[in-house]
Amino acid sequence: MILVSPRNPLNIGAVARAMANFGFARLAVAAPYAPHWREARSAVGAPDLLANAREADSLGEAIANCTLVVGTGTLTHRKAEQEVVSLPDLLPYIVRELDRGGRVGLVFGPEKHGLTREDLSYCHVLCEIPTDPRQPSMNLGQAVAVCLYELSRVTAGRAGEGGAEADGEKQGGARASSASLDRLGDLIEETMAGAGYSPRAMAPANRHDLRLLLRRLALSPHDTRRMLGLFRRILHRLYGNGVKGRPRN
Amino acid sequence: MILVSPRNPLNIGAVARAMANFGFARLAVAAPYAPHWREARSAVGAPDLLANAREADSLGEAIANCTLVVGTGTLTHRKAEQEVVSLPDLLPYIVRELDRGGRVGLVFGPEKHGLTREDLSYCHVLCEIPTDPRQPSMNLGQAVAVCLYELSRVTAGRAGEGGAEADGEKQGGARASSASLDRLGDLIEETMAGAGYSPRAMAPANRHDLRLLLRRLALSPHDTRRMLGLFRRILHRLYGNGVKGRPRN
Repeated sequence: MILVSPRNPLNIGAVARAMANFGFARLAVAAPYAPHWREARSAVGAPDLLANAREADSLGEAIANCTLVVGTGTLTHRKAEQEVVSLPDLLPYIVRELDRGGRVGLVFGPEKHGLTREDLSYCHVLCEIPTDPRQPSMNLGQAVAVCLYELSRVTAGRAGEGGAEADGEKQGGARASSASLDRLGDLIEETMAGAGYSPRAMAPANRHDLRLLLRRLALSPHDTRRMLGLFRRILHRLYGNGVKGRPRN
Repeated sequence: MILVSPRNPLNIGAVARAMANFGFARLAVAAPYAPHWREARSAVGAPDLLANAREADSLGEAIANCTLVVGTGTLTHRKAEQEVVSLPDLLPYIVRELDRGGRVGLVFGPEKHGLTREDLSYCHVLCEIPTDPRQPSMNLGQAVAVCLYELSRVTAGRAGEGGAEADGEKQGGARASSASLDRLGDLIEETMAGAGYSPRAMAPANRHDLRLLLRRLALSPHDTRRMLGLFRRILHRLYGNGVKGRPRN
């Protein structure tokens, strides 16, 4: 499970407690607010999993080894850019990914505003808890408890960040890890720049769309390696011919 | 939903928020700690349902009009005296009761120790959230959120204390209300005393067992009225013959 910039130490404690209640052990925190995070970790009676939580500078880093990233939150004010699944229907997605040896990461945003549009671009699927439209926004600790209650029905006995320990590349059939998709995305972006595909001002928007696209393709690790090779080759040609940041033809 | 002596105002607020999230409107509080309860009610942004919550001196009073009382908690340290149902299996019990016009009350105990043995004797069924045996005890606000998430699958659109507005006596088939069972229990106890059935020292234990027994019988409102009539008649005879607190034969 991954928390992005959690604020309230009481909420962080509540998240850890719910994880312990439902048998989840691995927590990662992306871009935490240092003092709040320290306070939560050092709280009296804090579960071990809080002391063992992994810290990452960004969400991308926190989910680097995940092959299925599930974002959570209410989408009342924006349109999702990927598939949205209601929590009671999420199980089959998780089970399928675990069965083929993948690693699942469940991501929760900060208390105030939830996951940003950029955070969401790292997610393959968005999960919504069906709540009353008049009061859709849940407390972080309670949202985590409800999600883990639902997921504990299948993941019981499996360790990991709401996922399995197994390595997808060995068992075959799994998706590429988030980190390898990011490597591929970087290469494609470099190629776009090298080929003069789009003006510099469009780069952030293109990066966003590319991140979403690569996740939508559900590439296997093998596919990803081949595409990495292809784009490395293209880049070599581009730069080998002395064409830098300009259209090739 | 009924909270028995909740302590932490933050937890009370979290309970109210989860109720609003999942569309439950009616909250009753039994034997609240006055200052904590006042603080929770007057908190900034407290949902309306907290302002409208009903206060009762005892659990018995809070659930007087319920026909199915579901207690919650972990039972690691004691043996249940009634049926125990795992949360994912609770739905059919609730649906059946609502369909025959009953009123369901879901009861949560204080944070520290949960429902007492006496509290539990008012419950027809005990509900357990399946948690990790190494860390079974959940935070109150999170336990409520998980239960209401599960129950909101069927009760969506029905108001009440996790139950229906309908009156069981009118629609037929429902169970007797908790209050009418308590009236019957009082009469039977009086009869036991009048007939010299058991020594005074045994009275609390007998009251406890009687409360459980009457709930196990699943008496209809009609059954209950007949039994009330019978025991009133017996009492009249006992006291009419001048036999007070002594064995009749």
